[in-house]
Order: sequence, then C-alpha cells, then structure tokens
Amino acid sequence: MRTQVAIIGAGPSGLLLGQLLHKAGIDAIILERQTGDYVLGRIRAGILEQVCIDLMDEAGVGERMHKEGLVHGGFDLLVDGHRHRVDMNQLTGGKNVMVYGQTELTRDLMDARAAAGLTTVYEAANVKVHDFDTQNPRVTYEKDGQTHTIECDFIAGCDGFHGVCRASAPRSAIKEYEKVYPFGWLGLLSDTPPVHDELIYVNSPRGFALCSQRSMTRSRYYLQVPLTDKIEAWTDDAFWQELRLRLDDEANAKLVTGPSIEKSIAPLRSFVTEPLRFGRMFLAGDAGHIVPPTGAKGLNLAATDVKYLFNGIREYYEEKSEAGIDRYSELALKRIWRAERFSWWFTQLMHKFPDDGEIVGKFQRAELDYLMHSENGARTVAENYVGLPLDFGQ
Amino acid sequence: MRTQVAIIGAGPSGLLLGQLLHKAGIDAIILERQTGDYVLGRIRAGILEQVCIDLMDEAGVGERMHKEGLVHGGFDLLVDGHRHRVDMNQLTGGKNVMVYGQTELTRDLMDARAAAGLTTVYEAANVKVHDFDTQNPRVTYEKDGQTHTIECDFIAGCDGFHGVCRASAPRSAIKEYEKVYPFGWLGLLSDTPPVHDELIYVNSPRGFALCSQRSMTRSRYYLQVPLTDKIEAWTDDAFWQELRLRLDDEANAKLVTGPSIEKSIAPLRSFVTEPLRFGRMFLAGDAGHIVPPTGAKGLNLAATDVKYLFNGIREYYEEKSEAGIDRYSELALKRIWRAERFSWWFTQLMHKFPDDGEIVGKFQRAELDYLMHSENGARTVAENYVGLPLDFGQ
Repeated sequence: MRTQVAIIGAGPSGLLLGQLLHKAGIDAIILERQTGDYVLGRIRAGILEQVCIDLMDEAGVGERMHKEGLVHGGFDLLVDGHRHRVDMNQLTGGKNVMVYGQTELTRDLMDARAAAGLTTVYEAANVKVHDFDTQNPRVTYEKDGQTHTIECDFIAGCDGFHGVCRASAPRSAIKEYEKVYPFGWLGLLSDTPPVHDELIYVNSPRGFALCSQRSMTRSRYYLQVPLTDKIEAWTDDAFWQELRLRLDDEANAKLVTGPSIEKSIAPLRSFVTEPLRFGRMFLAGDAGHIVPPTGAKGLNLAATDVKYLFNGIREYYEEKSEAGIDRYSELALKRIWRAERFSWWFTQLMHKFPDDGEIVGKFQRAELDYLMHSENGARTVAENYVGLPLDFGQ
Repeated sequence: MRTQVAIIGAGPSGLLLGQLLHKAGIDAIILERQTGDYVLGRIRAGILEQVCIDLMDEAGVGERMHKEGLVHGGFDLLVDGHRHRVDMNQLTGGKNVMVYGQTELTRDLMDARAAAGLTTVYEAANVKVHDFDTQNPRVTYEKDGQTHTIECDFIAGCDGFHGVCRASAPRSAIKEYEKVYPFGWLGLLSDTPPVHDELIYVNSPRGFALCSQRSMTRSRYYLQVPLTDKIEAWTDDAFWQELRLRLDDEANAKLVTGPSIEKSIAPLRSFVTEPLRFGRMFLAGDAGHIVPPTGAKGLNLAATDVKYLFNGIREYYEEKSEAGIDRYSELALKRIWRAERFSWWFTQLMHKFPDDGEIVGKFQRAELDYLMHSENGARTVAENYVGLPLDFGQ
C-alpha cells in the first residue's frame, strides 16, 4: 500500500488530521490498534476552545457540535464555601468555550470518515514505524495474521502517550520533561442533569472537586483522591457523599445523583517531548505532551497541533515548500508550553497538596483571594481558559 | 515612667508609629536595644510604595524624601538575555514607586523625633514585656546598671523578627507560618552610578540578580548565591565578575564597578504570625512577618501595619472606641497575606531553584513569556508591585 500521510492513531488528533487532509485532497491512511468502539468508550475531555470549534468547522464536521454543544460564557470557583463566577465572556471581550464531549467529537469525525469512504484500519497490531529519517518512510502492521506495509511521505504520530511513534524516536534526539502530581482524579459519569448550568471548580478543605457536564442530561463529576485509592473501593454512594462534603449548600440543594455509567481514577501528569519532529515523522496531541486536566487543555492542544501540522503538510504539497513542516515543532511547542504552564498553575491553585507546608496553602488562598478581587487577575484566568489567541506573542 | 504607648524597636516601624502618635497628641516612648548608628547601618529596602510615601507625609517627615527620592515608573525584566520593561505607570493608570533608602527614611524619622524632643531610649538592655493581657501592661529594661519600668496603655512590638514581643506571646495563642528558600542574596553597596535609571530584575541561567540603587551615585546589586557560600569568599572582584555574567551586553557596557561599602549575604524567608494582637500588645512590621525581598514589600508592609495600628490607637483615645484595635490584626493580615503571596510568587518566578525538576524551569520560562506578552499578565505584576489599593477587596 502507498499513501501520502500514514496516521498512527484514530483518536481525535488522527481523525481530525485525516479529515483536514481529505478536504485538501491529500491522501491518508489511519492505523488504530484498538476497535472503533474502544476508542469511543474512552471518557475524556469535554471543553472546546474557539480554535478547536473553528477547526471542526474547517474539517466540515461541525454540524452536530453546533446543534448539541453547550456554549459556556463562564465558570464558578467555589473556595471554602464561597462562590465566585469567572465571567470569561465579559473578561475576554466576548469569547466562550463549548461543552461537547470528546466522545461525540470523535464519533462525528469517524462518521465523516466512513461517509467519505476513507481507510481506517482498526485492530492493527504491532504497528512499527521505519525509515522516517529518509525520504521514504514506511509503516508496518499485522492484521488477520498477515504483515502489511504502507509506504508514505510522512508519518503522523497521533498515537497517544503510550504510542509507538514517540517510543521509536532516537533517544539521543529527544528530551522529555515530566511532572507527576501526588493525587489523582476520580471521575464519575452519570445520566443525571448537571448540578449547575456552568462548570464549578471546587477548592475545599477536603480537596479539589469539579462539577462538569457532557449535555443537559449527562454529568461528569471529579474528586481529588490519593493515588493509593482503588477504584473498587469507591461505591457510587461513597462518591456522592464525598462530593456533597466538598460542595456548598446551593449546589447540594440542586445535586441530582444516580448510578454511574463510568467511574475511574486517572493520574495527573505534566509531560512535554521536545522536539515534535523526527525527520519525516511528527508527533501531535498526547503523543507529544500531556497536561493535567484542570485547565481543559488536552484536546484543545491536540487540535492546534493538528492545525499547525496540517498547514505544514498542505504547504508541502501545494507550494512545494518545506517551510511549514520545518516550523511545526517550534510553533506547536510555543503554544504547548503556554498551555502546560496554565494547566500546572491552575492545578496548583485548586488542589490540596499533601506534602506542602501550611504556608503554601495560605499562599494558595491568598492567590485565589487576589484573583477573585482583581479584574486584571481574573482576566489572566479567563484569557488562558478560553485559549490564548493563535498569534499570541508574535 | 508612664506613657500611653510603649514602642519596642526604633527601626522604621517604631519610629513611624512614634511620629504619627506624636502628631496626634498621643504620648509614646521608644526603646531600642541597639545604638542609633547601628540602626542606621543596617542596609535594607529602598523602594517605597505610594501608601508609604503618603504616610511619611502624614507624619510630617516627607520633605527630604520628595527632594531626593527618585520616582520610578517601571522596571526591567532581563530573562535569558532578553529585556522587557514593565511599565508600571502605564499599566496601573499612573502609579509609581519611589527609590529612597530605608536608611534615609530612618534618619529622617530619627531627626524629626529628636527635633520634637521625644524620648527614644537606645541601648536598652534586657527589654521585657509584662501583663499585656491586662489593662495595665508594663515594660522593663536595663540601662546604666539600673532596671527601669514603663507603665503604659499599649505595647507596640516593632522589634523585628528576632524581637522580644513575638517571643513573649503565649505559644498557645500564636500560629506561625514559615518557608525558607534554598538560596540567599549576596548584596553589595557601592558609591557608583547605577547601571540603569530603573531597576533590572534578572533571571539568568546562572541565577537571579538585581540591579538596584539608592541614589544617582549609590548602587545596590544583588546576586542569588547558595546558602553555603561564605561572605569572606566573595571578593569585590568576584562579585562584579559574576554580576557581569548574569547581565546583558547593554548593561555590561554601562556597568561602573567600584569598591564595596557594604557586602553581606541574607537568607530569604516567608514568615507570618497570626494573630498580630495579644491583649494590649500589637506586632507590626518584621516582628509579625517577613517577606523575601524580591517584591520590595517588607518596608511597605511595615508602613501599612503602622497605619492600621495608628488608626486603631487614635480611635481608642479620640473616640473611646476599641473597634479599631479590635480590627487591627485581621485588617493588617489581609494585606500581609496578599503581599506575602506576591513576594513568594515573584521569588519563584525569578530565581533558579536548585532542587526542582527541569520542567519547573520550563514552566517558569513559560510564565515569564506569558507575562511579557499579555497585557493582563503584565497588569497583575504592576498592580502588585506598586502596592494593591488599601481598599482592595473590600
């Protein structure tokens, strides 16, 4: 087989890139280790920045998103029982975010790909990337007992944190930065109406909590828990009980509980790989970087990686210029580090850090107090949360 | 002896409080463990916020300050060789700070006190505070081989971090918060013209540096050094050489070096005592809290403590109301924690932390990058640096 771009991974990054390339008349094959249903079953982010919304439109897959997505112009901070609304829309001069689950976005992209008759190979085993340091990269994989080879111009590594692409980059050419946080997020998905029409970020003496949502009938709640906690030990009842202890009376009066559809504990990690290009192989999304979910930046960063990478590849084919792909890594990393910084900062601001001294907890309260009383402070939170402009700092 | 307010410590807090009380017709005696010359010989801060300037005027001792103080409308950040000016004046809608050394301010207050014939007892040994949990507090001290007693209505503990007042508060009534930083500041004072007309805060791969000044002919430079460094090992030449390595070409072209008048290593500490009132004894300034010097907040916080305490004491005598002294601790601590937070944050932003992972250094660079490119970000730095308004958050 031969294609122009071999995309490894059929998550949102790979699918979005595939769709953008298709619209530009560039041929791509997507290889995915799992089944489509498995990919759809992964519960992930649900907040889209405007940049991500625009990209879905550019890819021609925005219709359902605009119909079903919920526009949010702000969110609440709930600190030690006191509520404060961050009015993003007002603070940024009219910008919003959209609540639309990653699962829905992925489904839209899968449907569009299927409708266009484009090739996605699911359950592709033992994927390997070869010769990406030459003009003729290859990808091999096994399926139905046979080994297959794809010859291509470029390999797009959209295969996540545990994927084969980053792992195949030469160790001498790569630098990795990592921070693991001393707690996890216990998440519960339920078909219950959300407790509030916007998100509530909670910093309570018992730790962080987040009241989020996927739709008007589906809620997603999170609790900060010790990394040693086992998911089996957290019954639904125990979850709701602990959540109540971290909320205020107003939220508790409105909270509707119900059985969980999904429940899991995720670790929190900051991780960045430099560079994101190795010859003719590029990393995008979680393959290159991880943010803690506090700032809702993971999916949005993946989307801008894809945008930059798509622009570079299109430029290569349409203008016979390598300038775009040469610039990809640097351009993407600038935005990545800014979002990594915000996600780290917002994580530090909102969680209880078990090993820090008491004074650090007081600094945290003083910072929250400052942000809630300073318009300038609130603007910094808002402009980062909605996503810095694509031309920021240029 | 009997007085209305016994002030322990003749540093800027005690002297400023004494002067304000005098102007209000309230009698005070100041006790100081050291000589006046010793107090003047301590090299400390040199940046006054508007609140502090106003208070010097209110105390009637602002004349020389206005004549000799240098108004600064901004400062430079120098990060990895790149300069960025924080235009405080523009970013805050017209606010500035003033360069006027703590030594000069102290001298003005001492001179005014002497001119008014007010009592300051220098070299008061073995000062002890008694019965401040009653209506009749007393202070005892030894001088010239005799023990003296002062009966008073109130005791103002302006006696610094190592003073007797905080140490005399009952341990069960006090809570102390502390963070010690893993480096010190090596400071050098010289009679050389400053390298720049404003301050330069430097974050270089070799660590923090600060180019500051006391006047047009006197400079004060600082270098971040390991806590294990000994002052004897730092010759003037070694200091200037290391400073040059942390500056950019522009600064190095203008730097005038010369012999040191003073040279010392100071540790960096964040420290807060809660509460600041114990019956009829109050803590103000360094007796109650310490900030790392990065944000230039130490002297300014002491000044607002004094302002709040003076207001309370005046209210007590003039209006027979204890509301002001009852509110002192809470009111002062609100402002203190805000300034502590800023000083901690600015210290973290500008120093090299030897034990943090590489990713934290990258976050630091990303935060500096954000602040240099976001007007909102720059405004948060500026409004904190010039000092939050006295009615902030009320």
